[in-house]
Amino acid sequence: MTTRWTRKDLLGLRELSADEINFILDTADAFKQVGTREIKKVPSLRGKTLVNFFVEPSTRTRTSFELAALRLSADVINISATTSSLTKGETLKDTARNLEALHADILVLRHGSAGAPQFLANRLKAARSNIFGLLKLGARVTLVGPSTLVPREFEKLGVEISHKIDEVLPKADVVNLLRIQHERQRREYFPGIGEYIRFFGLTKERAKLLKADCLIMHPGPINRGVEIDSEVADGLHSVILNQVTNGLAVRMAVLYLCGGISA
Amino acid sequence: MTTRWTRKDLLGLRELSADEINFILDTADAFKQVGTREIKKVPSLRGKTLVNFFVEPSTRTRTSFELAALRLSADVINISATTSSLTKGETLKDTARNLEALHADILVLRHGSAGAPQFLANRLKAARSNIFGLLKLGARVTLVGPSTLVPREFEKLGVEISHKIDEVLPKADVVNLLRIQHERQRREYFPGIGEYIRFFGLTKERAKLLKADCLIMHPGPINRGVEIDSEVADGLHSVILNQVTNGLAVRMAVLYLCGGISA
Amino acid sequence: MTTRWTRKDLLGLRELSADEINFILDTADAFKQVGTREIKKVPSLRGKTLVNFFVEPSTRTRTSFELAALRLSADVINISATTSSLTKGETLKDTARNLEALHADILVLRHGSAGAPQFLANRLKAARSNIFGLLKLGARVTLVGPSTLVPREFEKLGVEISHKIDEVLPKADVVNLLRIQHERQRREYFPGIGEYIRFFGLTKERAKLLKADCLIMHPGPINRGVEIDSEVADGLHSVILNQVTNGLAVRMAVLYLCGGISA
Repeated sequence: MTTRWTRKDLLGLRELSADEINFILDTADAFKQVGTREIKKVPSLRGKTLVNFFVEPSTRTRTSFELAALRLSADVINISATTSSLTKGETLKDTARNLEALHADILVLRHGSAGAPQFLANRLKAARSNIFGLLKLGARVTLVGPSTLVPREFEKLGVEISHKIDEVLPKADVVNLLRIQHERQRREYFPGIGEYIRFFGLTKERAKLLKADCLIMHPGPINRGVEIDSEVADGLHSVILNQVTNGLAVRMAVLYLCGGISA
Repeated sequence: MTTRWTRKDLLGLRELSADEINFILDTADAFKQVGTREIKKVPSLRGKTLVNFFVEPSTRTRTSFELAALRLSADVINISATTSSLTKGETLKDTARNLEALHADILVLRHGSAGAPQFLANRLKAARSNIFGLLKLGARVTLVGPSTLVPREFEKLGVEISHKIDEVLPKADVVNLLRIQHERQRREYFPGIGEYIRFFGLTKERAKLLKADCLIMHPGPINRGVEIDSEVADGLHSVILNQVTNGLAVRMAVLYLCGGISA
Repeated sequence: MTTRWTRKDLLGLRELSADEINFILDTADAFKQVGTREIKKVPSLRGKTLVNFFVEPSTRTRTSFELAALRLSADVINISATTSSLTKGETLKDTARNLEALHADILVLRHGSAGAPQFLANRLKAARSNIFGLLKLGARVTLVGPSTLVPREFEKLGVEISHKIDEVLPKADVVNLLRIQHERQRREYFPGIGEYIRFFGLTKERAKLLKADCLIMHPGPINRGVEIDSEVADGLHSVILNQVTNGLAVRMAVLYLCGGISA
């Protein structure tokens, strides 16, 4: 392998080359088998400190990063927004500089977009980094959803747009569902849960349109019966739980690669 | 010792044989002295990951399991209900399968009874596993309390029932008090705090009825002045703090025994 | 060095001799460089358990103690007030005895003053331990603030009192600002945020009064634009982030010194 890793930060996939993404995935592959060993630990980051700083809570992501760090023998400190000094009016920058003064080696930060209009941020957030990564690796990406959530203007990202899932499913090699956070959706943009399921939900019936070897992905947590039916989520097409296992290995790879670069 | 441990799960004492319970206690005995060493750590579960998943919070129990795991050299991840995806509507089963996909080795789950009528669950919960364990080991068990909380029907568990504590105390070798969660009790079943103390509280005066070598137990946290007077809780009969020390050793034993079985 | 450390508890600086304070600082100095190593860990407290018990939350302090303990190879258990049995009515003493029964080696306790009148406690709390330490080490200390917050009676602590910051700044070698928690201040004692800034805020203009080599300290989190202007907080006089680094080293020293004493 000729690629060498030189980044000490990872903000998203947009900034990475296809070679770099592949380098992360190859490293993840090597780490993946650590999780199946009797002793699930390698000394790669021994004596390093990782701070998990989650301004927006996500147990799923936090747990995966915490496990990734522990398996690399790093020490982990968890900080959540509600208990942090951010709530006392400290700026994010001040918090970051404090962590730096403590010589924390690796900072995992989860933060809602600030400054960007909330509406656009909400609509783009889930799709963005994923899209850039997939396009860089040569995938053809089609976004499917109601026109209020998936407007034509998204085409300029380099993806195709569709509002009719039944036309897209028969051609797909992979279907990646996103969680519908209907409690957070604004009424103007979201058609209502029943209507959403009828037009876009991956129901048992609709799954019959899929190719035999099509993979179904979902970042979790699943809304069973909303964006996906239970039978499909637990069926042969589904690689949803493999994503959890692989996500941990990818996090180990990223922590290992970025954590090995001196600040 | 001829018993061999073959369980990878422990749901309660009802399912265990007396031999198995004694095997846990013997193992706990061996681990108990680890807590008194200069270096309070043994490598038994090194490289294993324990997830403490508490849907119903209990600092006391969580701390004891966390310490038990750390002393066995396992890594610990804490997840609480309020921050977990369960609050986002994920099913408990989905959460469990996610943890499995992360190759977590040991899951400690604390969860309120679901499905069962809340009333019966509340009344039976505290007594159940304890009762089964004690009966299996040959103890004679008498439940004492007002008839609304300790109805006759409990006799079918194999215990005796009494509503008059003054008649029971002089015969007891061990008195195990339970915490009165009077804020949670429904008025219909609970006689009121003053009346409870008068009829059932282990007051200083009432403690004079005890045999000289009778032991007093309590799972904590104590309501001083409610189910037990301070003088009695801190007196010679009391082994309440020994229970904390021993509880940790028993947890180490259970984690060691169940964690050593490949899933 | 002739001093030997014999304390297993540290409640404040008032009880310490100047020799003891210097002994902590010298030990901290030795530990400080651990934070700059590739492997940020020494085995000093391996196999010891530290319980971080914060009745009053403070992410900043908790994180620093947690990191200090991890770098000394101790295991750490975090307990917060909201989740602890204290909220179930257990006394602080019972909680402490429970932790003792678990053979926790080191307890870090953060607790609001109980019993003392809240008003006086609030006013004195921030200044107290700091003042005793500084006086013992030979510093001349002047408290500056409005007379409602810094009354004459504080002089009996051995400090000077001033209500005019512009008279004090030109003479100071070190200016230690305290965080204004204006949301907690009672109207009767606190002059209002605008008025406070005008009379006591360390503004850019006021900073011109400082000696060239004067140091500016602040325990954090900073209220930028309230007790200190951003330009001053980030300027050449400021050692605010050095305090974070040094605070960690001092905590390592205290944990090491007190944790090495058998209970």
